[in-house]
Amino acid sequence: MADAEPNQAVNLSDKLAQFDDHWSPRTVTEFNGHDIMVVKVKGEFNWHHHDDTDDLFLVLKGRLTIRMPDGDGGDVELGPGELFVVPVGVEHQPFAEEEVEMMLIEPSGTPNSGDEATAAPRIVI
Amino acid sequence: MADAEPNQAVNLSDKLAQFDDHWSPRTVTEFNGHDIMVVKVKGEFNWHHHDDTDDLFLVLKGRLTIRMPDGDGGDVELGPGELFVVPVGVEHQPFAEEEVEMMLIEPSGTPNSGDEATAAPRIVI
Repeated sequence: MADAEPNQAVNLSDKLAQFDDHWSPRTVTEFNGHDIMVVKVKGEFNWHHHDDTDDLFLVLKGRLTIRMPDGDGGDVELGPGELFVVPVGVEHQPFAEEEVEMMLIEPSGTPNSGDEATAAPRIVI
Repeated sequence: MADAEPNQAVNLSDKLAQFDDHWSPRTVTEFNGHDIMVVKVKGEFNWHHHDDTDDLFLVLKGRLTIRMPDGDGGDVELGPGELFVVPVGVEHQPFAEEEVEMMLIEPSGTPNSGDEATAAPRIVI
């Protein structure tokens, strides 16, 4: 039997250097039915929630605010090397005054906007 | 109703500064039934596999080798900002010549050694 393809690390910076558009996550690998994604964002996204999943944000570059209702603990600010998990069902609105690079994890097929009709397409790089 | 506790980002460096021992992951938050963990490692771990889960490694500091059989793609080397997912069932042996800091994701309750008898305890920080 031939050997498998050689294993290769996923370099997050190299992946982020492959695109410039905002709010369009790229899937870089998979893990237990989830997409591991990188994304660049700037400005504010829509308020949304996910009915079936938590939402993990790990900032790699820049500063991100995740706006959330006060009753759910309020806004959180993230810099490089900081992460936050928005619990399932909680309304949130990511906001970045300057461009932010980050890693996201969501179950494969989760619409990033919380709604199939407005979701970014799944792109694997 | 009183407001929830204020949301707070998880700073991975701050968490890693709280301990010095090796091969003893600390859970820093949870995501969809998984533990998000940080760990310091040095030297080699045992060869093991997980019957029920992929195994995600994201290196934050230092250089990690994940040894794997050639038939499964062979060894992979990771530096800061690089990640790799060891697929479910694949034998692997993490190795670090110098100390490595990294983030791990595994389903809550997964024995880090692949075996309950030799697993590190679950510690939440």
